[in-house]
Amino acid sequence: MIIAVIGDSSCSTEEAKLAKTVGELLAQHDATIICGGLSGVMEAVCRGAKSEGGLTIGVLPGEDSSMANPWVDIPIATGVGYARNMAVVKSAQAVIAIGGNYGTLSEIAYALKRGIPVIGLNTWSLARNGQDDNSIIRVNSAAEAVDKAIALAKRHKGHEIAPRSSS
Amino acid sequence: MIIAVIGDSSCSTEEAKLAKTVGELLAQHDATIICGGLSGVMEAVCRGAKSEGGLTIGVLPGEDSSMANPWVDIPIATGVGYARNMAVVKSAQAVIAIGGNYGTLSEIAYALKRGIPVIGLNTWSLARNGQDDNSIIRVNSAAEAVDKAIALAKRHKGHEIAPRSSS
Amino acid sequence: MIIAVIGDSSCSTEEAKLAKTVGELLAQHDATIICGGLSGVMEAVCRGAKSEGGLTIGVLPGEDSSMANPWVDIPIATGVGYARNMAVVKSAQAVIAIGGNYGTLSEIAYALKRGIPVIGLNTWSLARNGQDDNSIIRVNSAAEAVDKAIALAKRHKGHEIAPRSSS
Amino acid sequence: MIIAVIGDSSCSTEEAKLAKTVGELLAQHDATIICGGLSGVMEAVCRGAKSEGGLTIGVLPGEDSSMANPWVDIPIATGVGYARNMAVVKSAQAVIAIGGNYGTLSEIAYALKRGIPVIGLNTWSLARNGQDDNSIIRVNSAAEAVDKAIALAKRHKGHEIAPRSSS
Repeated sequence: MIIAVIGDSSCSTEEAKLAKTVGELLAQHDATIICGGLSGVMEAVCRGAKSEGGLTIGVLPGEDSSMANPWVDIPIATGVGYARNMAVVKSAQAVIAIGGNYGTLSEIAYALKRGIPVIGLNTWSLARNGQDDNSIIRVNSAAEAVDKAIALAKRHKGHEIAPRSSS
Repeated sequence: MIIAVIGDSSCSTEEAKLAKTVGELLAQHDATIICGGLSGVMEAVCRGAKSEGGLTIGVLPGEDSSMANPWVDIPIATGVGYARNMAVVKSAQAVIAIGGNYGTLSEIAYALKRGIPVIGLNTWSLARNGQDDNSIIRVNSAAEAVDKAIALAKRHKGHEIAPRSSS
Repeated sequence: MIIAVIGDSSCSTEEAKLAKTVGELLAQHDATIICGGLSGVMEAVCRGAKSEGGLTIGVLPGEDSSMANPWVDIPIATGVGYARNMAVVKSAQAVIAIGGNYGTLSEIAYALKRGIPVIGLNTWSLARNGQDDNSIIRVNSAAEAVDKAIALAKRHKGHEIAPRSSS
Repeated sequence: MIIAVIGDSSCSTEEAKLAKTVGELLAQHDATIICGGLSGVMEAVCRGAKSEGGLTIGVLPGEDSSMANPWVDIPIATGVGYARNMAVVKSAQAVIAIGGNYGTLSEIAYALKRGIPVIGLNTWSLARNGQDDNSIIRVNSAAEAVDKAIALAKRHKGHEIAPRSSS
C-alpha cells in the first residue's frame, strides 16, 4: 500500500511534528510513503517513517536525485517541475494533506479529480460557487489520519505492492 | 497580452454564455486567449473570441492536435496529460476562472503559486486552516472579469506579444 | 499548418544562417513555426520568420514567458522542463531538424515515435542494432527542407489552423 | 544504487532473455532497478530482478498504477505520458539499453544530455552530421552490461539509497 503525504516545503514546528508522527504510524502499518521528496512536511514524514523502518519515495521536481531530503530511500528525479505534484498523488491509494500552500492545493485537486481519497489535517477547505465541497475528509490527529488513510486505501482499487520477503 | 480562461469541459448553459461573452470582450481588447483547448467553457470562450476576430490557443493534454475544439487557432499537443494545466496558466499574464471542477482548481492553485492574478466568476473559494484565502478576485459579470484581467495583466511582468503588423 | 523547427540553443554561424532562411521560407508559405523558444537555432528561425511577417510559437521549458527570444510571438511557458520537447514536435505536422545536440535527438525520437515526418539538415543519423534507420529525410538546403516539410505536412493528418481573416 | 533498464514494450525472445538476465545480475549486486513499468523488456528485467529478491520501480506514463507489470514493486503513476521517459533515466546513476524503438531512443537522448552513462546491448547507434557519436558504451553480454553499469554508477554523483536494515 502506498500512501501520499503532502504539505509545504516550509512548515511550522507543529506541522512537522504531526508529519513525523504520521510517518511513524504509516511505517508501523507497513505502508510505503510517497511524497515530494523535499523539506518541511516532506522531510518530517520521511524522517518519522525511517525511524520505524519504513520505505520512503520522494518524487522530485528537478533532474537531480541529490536534492532529495536525507530520509528518502527512493528518489525519483522527474525533471517535469511541479507537474510532479500529479505523480505524487496518482501513485497513492490515499493522500494525507498536512497544512500546505498552493502546491499542496494543486495536489489535493489532482487527487480529488482522480477519485483518490484525501484526508486533511489543518489544511485547505473548499467551496464551489458558494456551496461547501466536503470531499476532503477532516481529521484532528495523526492517528486518525493514518487510520482513515489505511482503511480507505484498502477499498481504493490500486496496485498491490509485491511482498519483498527476500530483500 | 495573453489571458487564460479556465473552466470545465462540461458546463451549464449559463457558464457557456458567460464564457462566450468573456471571449468576445477579450478579443475586442486585442487580448490573445489561452485555454485547455477542449469543450465546455474552453470551447465557448474560443467561439466568442473568434466571432470578434481574436486569436485563440488551446493547450491540449493529449498527443493529437485534432482533439482541439473547432475555434482553436493554435493547438498545442503537449502529450503530458493534465500537467498541461500548468502550462495553460503559466503562459498567461492573468487568469479568468468560470465555474469549474477539480481540474480548474488545480489551475487556480498553479496560478496563485506563481503569483499570476486569478479572477473568479462563480468558481471555487478557498480557506486554509479555517481562515479565508481571498486571493481569487471575485467578480459578478463577464465585463468586470475582462476589465480586471486586462488591468492586472498590464501590471504583471510578462512577455509582450510582438506586434504582427504584417500578418 | 504548423511546422516545428528544432536545433540547439547554441549553434554555428552556418546553422544560424540555415535556420534563418528556413524561417523566411516557411513564413512566405504561410506556415506557422513552433520551436523551443530559446536561443541558437530557435532564435534564428523565429527571426527569419518575423522578417517575412510569419507567426512564431515558442514552447519554453520554464515557468517564465520572458525567457523567450524576442522573435517569439506566442510564448508557452510549460513549466515541465525538457518534457516540453515532446510538445514542440507533437504540435506540428512536420519537423525540420537543423544540426542539434541530445535535446534535438530526443525531439527527433518523439516525432518518429508519433509518425510525424522529420526532415534533417546536417543533423543526427541513426542505426538500430547495426542496420541504418532512414526515417529522417535528409536534405541539403533550406529550400529543399521547407518544400519537403510543407508537402509532407499537407499529407499528415492534423489540425487545420482556422483562417484569421479579421485579425 | 539505482540502474535504469530501458527497451521496448514489445521485444524479441532474445531481448527478453537478455533483459531477464540483466535483472537477475543487478539484483545480485543489490542494485535497485528503475524502468518504464510496462511489458516487453521492462517486464523481463523486473521478472529477473524479483527472482533474485531485487527491488523494482516502474515509472508509468498513465494515471493508473494497476497498469504496471506484475513484477513491479513500486509503481509510479506519473500521468505525464511519454514525458515519463525523462524520469526513468534521470533517477538512475547508469542506464542499460536493450534493443529498443524510438521511445528508447528518447530515453538514451535524455540520459546523454544529462551526462548519465548509457550501456548498450543491440541498441541504437548514433552519428551527428556524418561523425560517429560513441557516447553509448557498447557491450556484448548481460554480464558485461551489468559490470559496466555498476562500475560507472559508482563514479556518477548521485543519491545513495539509505540502508533499509529493518525492512
